[in-house]
Amino acid sequence: MGAGANTVSSLSAVAYTPLVGRAETLEPTDGPLTVEELQLATRNRGIPLEALQYDITPTGLHYLLVHFDIPVIDAADWRLRIGGRVHTPVELTLDQIRALPSRTVPVTLECAGNGRARLAPRPLSQPWLVEAVGTAQWTGTPLAALLERAELADDAVEIVFSGADRGVQGDVEHDYARSLTVADAMRPEVLLAYEMNGRPLEPQHGFPLRLIVPGWYGMTSVKWLTSIEAIASPFEGFQQVDAYRYKSDADDVGEPVQRIRVRALMTPPGIPDFFSRRRIVDRGHVQLRGRAWSGEGPVTRVEVGVDGEWADAVLDAPVGEFAWCAWSFDWQAAPGEHELACRATDGAGNVQPAEQPWNYQGMGNNLLQRVPVTAR
Amino acid sequence: MGAGANTVSSLSAVAYTPLVGRAETLEPTDGPLTVEELQLATRNRGIPLEALQYDITPTGLHYLLVHFDIPVIDAADWRLRIGGRVHTPVELTLDQIRALPSRTVPVTLECAGNGRARLAPRPLSQPWLVEAVGTAQWTGTPLAALLERAELADDAVEIVFSGADRGVQGDVEHDYARSLTVADAMRPEVLLAYEMNGRPLEPQHGFPLRLIVPGWYGMTSVKWLTSIEAIASPFEGFQQVDAYRYKSDADDVGEPVQRIRVRALMTPPGIPDFFSRRRIVDRGHVQLRGRAWSGEGPVTRVEVGVDGEWADAVLDAPVGEFAWCAWSFDWQAAPGEHELACRATDGAGNVQPAEQPWNYQGMGNNLLQRVPVTAR
Repeated sequence: MGAGANTVSSLSAVAYTPLVGRAETLEPTDGPLTVEELQLATRNRGIPLEALQYDITPTGLHYLLVHFDIPVIDAADWRLRIGGRVHTPVELTLDQIRALPSRTVPVTLECAGNGRARLAPRPLSQPWLVEAVGTAQWTGTPLAALLERAELADDAVEIVFSGADRGVQGDVEHDYARSLTVADAMRPEVLLAYEMNGRPLEPQHGFPLRLIVPGWYGMTSVKWLTSIEAIASPFEGFQQVDAYRYKSDADDVGEPVQRIRVRALMTPPGIPDFFSRRRIVDRGHVQLRGRAWSGEGPVTRVEVGVDGEWADAVLDAPVGEFAWCAWSFDWQAAPGEHELACRATDGAGNVQPAEQPWNYQGMGNNLLQRVPVTAR
Repeated sequence: MGAGANTVSSLSAVAYTPLVGRAETLEPTDGPLTVEELQLATRNRGIPLEALQYDITPTGLHYLLVHFDIPVIDAADWRLRIGGRVHTPVELTLDQIRALPSRTVPVTLECAGNGRARLAPRPLSQPWLVEAVGTAQWTGTPLAALLERAELADDAVEIVFSGADRGVQGDVEHDYARSLTVADAMRPEVLLAYEMNGRPLEPQHGFPLRLIVPGWYGMTSVKWLTSIEAIASPFEGFQQVDAYRYKSDADDVGEPVQRIRVRALMTPPGIPDFFSRRRIVDRGHVQLRGRAWSGEGPVTRVEVGVDGEWADAVLDAPVGEFAWCAWSFDWQAAPGEHELACRATDGAGNVQPAEQPWNYQGMGNNLLQRVPVTAR
């Protein structure tokens, strides 16, 4: 196969523009966008920013980040198994889960890697700019009651959630899996969700069942859930101890990525230019609108910057305890070129930075948004 | 505003990694991917290739290309107007259209720009690799009957379809609009569609009504349809005479892009590596599967290449007259590195090229797909 392997490499090279470079390593880069990042960007999807005008994001406009392949699951064959350090293992069909007490809660989810492609050097992964967010109505049954039914053993310290999506990341083959401490798993807002916006989960959003952990970045809300396992020592899976950490370099153990950092985004005003996405507005009164959210406390302030001068926006009540709020700002647009910006502050005193602290994997980047606009 | 404009430029520059370059011109480039292309790639979306296994693509997995912003339309206020060179102008509500005779037809749609980012030099627009395709069940009423009701004038030569999406492209502000000749518009398979996969159109797919022109690239199937106008001379709108042409350079008038060129795609076998999307399979028998389609005739042959040796795949019957067919191929995978490929041939004698003829806007690229695989 040696000669074959050489042939493979040379054939592969012509499958793409040679000038769309391939990544040589997985280290953050000052170089151009790679074909690997482009492959991820055409698979995954952000919210089109004009969809920020919906209180509840239509399912087809919600952001999506999938690590491996989207599994095709037959609900009739599927089971959820709760085991490990429990006294009463539980196995449930989807119908049995749907028959349990349910809640419907609006939740804003955001990808922990949102903003990654704005960092320099740029960590190599899904190259989000600002658009990895959405708010849906999630319907499911509270996790805590099922954990109580399974009767956690006294030595259980964490709960591991595993999905049906399998692949290789960081040279480790694994089913996607993440853990929560028992205390976090028992929080009343944590759901096992089987509906999004009033309909069964679509394949790409975790059919038939997913975890929803309000306030946390999206990687925690494990999709295509198959197994819930109580363990007696901290989980050491790849997605827990390698990925999703605030690290300074490849060897840094880092700190875990958990709650969503405060952010505001603006619905781009006026009409777009197709290629540049530059916005064009008519001179005079323009109502600027957008959304703001934080997993670390309620949003307490949104400011809008017009050509570098900041002023407070008007905040609406949030869509829910764990969902974004709308904001608005009246702008008198003089003819010419402008740069609009917005930044939010939350009740814990966090404010979006104008210069983003860098981290090795590009996690939790909440650099404020800037929107170039031409008024005519 | 002069000083302000300078400030804007310098502020904008820090909003993105400086090394994710901005496009200097709209000319095709040998340079790296630009931030403008990345902005488009995070808004638009391809089919995740594993979703090729569905006969009918779930709505949330269908490809999507939107030129301007996705309009938010209140169906109660919306009207379809049929006018211009007709004897009996028609105005219809959505309920009136839904009450007309209806058909449901599976149709494979593909973006005319699919494959663009594999060309060198690379035309600057949405940077598709191979994934801009999907097949849905479209429900609507045949256009021909409504045109007959409007009674086209004898001098009507083309029908112009306009959408509610407005923006600037090629320095021209316009509502997105495309035309068909009267003969093409009267074809029995052309629908005014209000349902996709059995549900009302979602916002991003053209709610409340869109055109569906089976066999043609997607730009023809105008979304968010508001107006149908018969005209007495060929339509000269930007999307007709500038965009969507096979051109050799910026000044070439070119030839119109119309029917979908033949293409096969493979459902990537095995499991993926997250970043590279390289596939990993177990040695031994692997059933390769995929889809093939053409707007210029039935698919008559699909070949699979394994390390440069080609053999015929087995073709299933197509999902519909204007929809893709499934194909399969049994592969005995020896351990090592491999390159798989596939290419289709249609009844008009067209076969996918191994070396793609270049055109200025990156239209109709059907270069065969290559899939690197590691067997272990």
